[in-house]
Amino acid sequence: MHKTTITLADGRELTYYDTAADQARDAVDQRQLPPANSASQLRYEPFMDTWVIYASHRQDRTYLPSAQNCPLCASTAEHHTEVPAASYEVVVFQNRFPALSAPPPEAVGTPPGQLLASRPAGGRSEVVVYTDDHDASFADLTPERVELLLDALIDRTAVLSALPDVDQVFCFENRGREIGVTQPHPHGQIYAYPFITPRTSKALDSVRSYYRRTGRNLYDDVVAAERKDGSRVIIETEFWTAFVPHAARWPYEVHLYPNRRIPDLASLDADERKELAEVELDIFGRFARLFDAPAPYIAGWHQAPVRDGREIFALHLELFTSRRTSDKLKYLAGSESAMDAFASDVIPEAAAARLRELAP
Amino acid sequence: MHKTTITLADGRELTYYDTAADQARDAVDQRQLPPANSASQLRYEPFMDTWVIYASHRQDRTYLPSAQNCPLCASTAEHHTEVPAASYEVVVFQNRFPALSAPPPEAVGTPPGQLLASRPAGGRSEVVVYTDDHDASFADLTPERVELLLDALIDRTAVLSALPDVDQVFCFENRGREIGVTQPHPHGQIYAYPFITPRTSKALDSVRSYYRRTGRNLYDDVVAAERKDGSRVIIETEFWTAFVPHAARWPYEVHLYPNRRIPDLASLDADERKELAEVELDIFGRFARLFDAPAPYIAGWHQAPVRDGREIFALHLELFTSRRTSDKLKYLAGSESAMDAFASDVIPEAAAARLRELAP
Repeated sequence: MHKTTITLADGRELTYYDTAADQARDAVDQRQLPPANSASQLRYEPFMDTWVIYASHRQDRTYLPSAQNCPLCASTAEHHTEVPAASYEVVVFQNRFPALSAPPPEAVGTPPGQLLASRPAGGRSEVVVYTDDHDASFADLTPERVELLLDALIDRTAVLSALPDVDQVFCFENRGREIGVTQPHPHGQIYAYPFITPRTSKALDSVRSYYRRTGRNLYDDVVAAERKDGSRVIIETEFWTAFVPHAARWPYEVHLYPNRRIPDLASLDADERKELAEVELDIFGRFARLFDAPAPYIAGWHQAPVRDGREIFALHLELFTSRRTSDKLKYLAGSESAMDAFASDVIPEAAAARLRELAP
Repeated sequence: MHKTTITLADGRELTYYDTAADQARDAVDQRQLPPANSASQLRYEPFMDTWVIYASHRQDRTYLPSAQNCPLCASTAEHHTEVPAASYEVVVFQNRFPALSAPPPEAVGTPPGQLLASRPAGGRSEVVVYTDDHDASFADLTPERVELLLDALIDRTAVLSALPDVDQVFCFENRGREIGVTQPHPHGQIYAYPFITPRTSKALDSVRSYYRRTGRNLYDDVVAAERKDGSRVIIETEFWTAFVPHAARWPYEVHLYPNRRIPDLASLDADERKELAEVELDIFGRFARLFDAPAPYIAGWHQAPVRDGREIFALHLELFTSRRTSDKLKYLAGSESAMDAFASDVIPEAAAARLRELAP
């Protein structure tokens, strides 16, 4: 993997990730762009004991541009995009409308000890473009491209984890207009959070509490129990296990774990990485074939926080769709949105059986 | 308030709530209905330390029926609905497609101690119909009807709290096709959960932890801080305070608290109840005027669990919309759905200013 980092017209960073070193990555961003406005704020929510991110500049972000105006395509003489090059493999850049970014130096929060606390956001939001083919999707990539993409995510995780205010790096993809995706060009995102997210924080609490009760690791025992039970396992290979969890919250949901517990993507060895590309393409392909049209989905790599729980956390991918049937979506209504209590119509064993039928 | 309980053709309970005792509520459900199928299951999710509800019979529920086929309208000679009467005020009945209901006697869960635990669901799901006017909404009700509705919610909370397997009673309303509402007829729902929801459980943890640190109640201090700050307060009356919380998660979100801390709706005194009807209609009216068309919303009464935290919990209503602008919705994408980390485009003070402008 070869990386080349350039600076866009408004000062944001863009990095090309290439398989070979023979690419000249010297194209210059020819746009006139105003300086990026990104004064996000964090506010403390005391009942959930977490931070909420405010980014009012995101109200104006680009929504479903036509293919000719896609900001993620390669640039042409007529159309200058976010990527100055005329073609590319994988490219990562700072989001122009970031939820998270380094605060301006003059930004201040509330004095310590105040109940209604706020602080400048910090962290970083990046866009990860998978290919210059506007009409492709993750499931269409070659195994080689998925490996390059994985190299890029590992590099970004290292770069972002080294920023002083970053506590957790989350690499994810939202796909499908039904779930609000504003850019159809195949891409993922990275949020480098300046706090540990509620989901991860709660999971670490549960893992610690389970260890106190049993002396064992909860991730190890759940994956072993799913493998032993087998009724929800989709794929089992030398290095990876994919299953619909026993208590899945979404109509179709798959968790993918390496067979040995490691904290993050960087800890994968060469064999695990190679096999991962095939396994990921297999699973994403099944999601693409679940319904008449490719299912909208959210996919995210859960990695250990930068400085907490690294010895107990288990790297894994969670992939799910809110689509229940070809013409019905699962909505998060009162029970889910107000009480975080999920009700599902789809029994996990039925979801697993359907996903097993869809083997390539 | 006068109540009359009858039994529907498939054995479900229906209760009429009337302002006067002179209504004959003896109309018989003339439909031929198969017995209600409601074998829901709970499964334990060990990382979030909660239960997920599975109700596969809900896949087949009625979706957006035409007004002539509305199952919540009053019955006519030609059209028999869920409500046998020819007219009604407020009516509550067991959901025909319940997420939660008493399990069949033969239902069994996993043996104790198993990691992938499940159990029959228990609890109850009810539908609360506000009026026999199909085209009305909560904001259109008279203050007298809102008071009757409140009486009904108080009675249902008492009835459902007395069921042996119920831990928490949640009265809520989902409104608007955008958030997946399947019945446009004005109605709310009640979920009587056989567990304490994650949201409430976490809030109680935070309140206890705050008490250990400060000797004070977190609800009291947050409401006092919001009143003192004032920049997000929408309505302040003798008995009630409504504000956009300092760290609101949704584009427009209002929390409504009584000025003295009480655990549940039943603890409201006569003056508080009377004023509540006016304050609720005021707030829901503002939400109806926020955009070109009435905003979709979720509104829920947070009450203390049946047997836990009653001396520290504070009854309050939370009302929010996922609509950001007349043509944009807030979607729960990767950060929210996978990490429970919320990012919002709307600054709470701006939301509050807009809601204050919309005073009746």
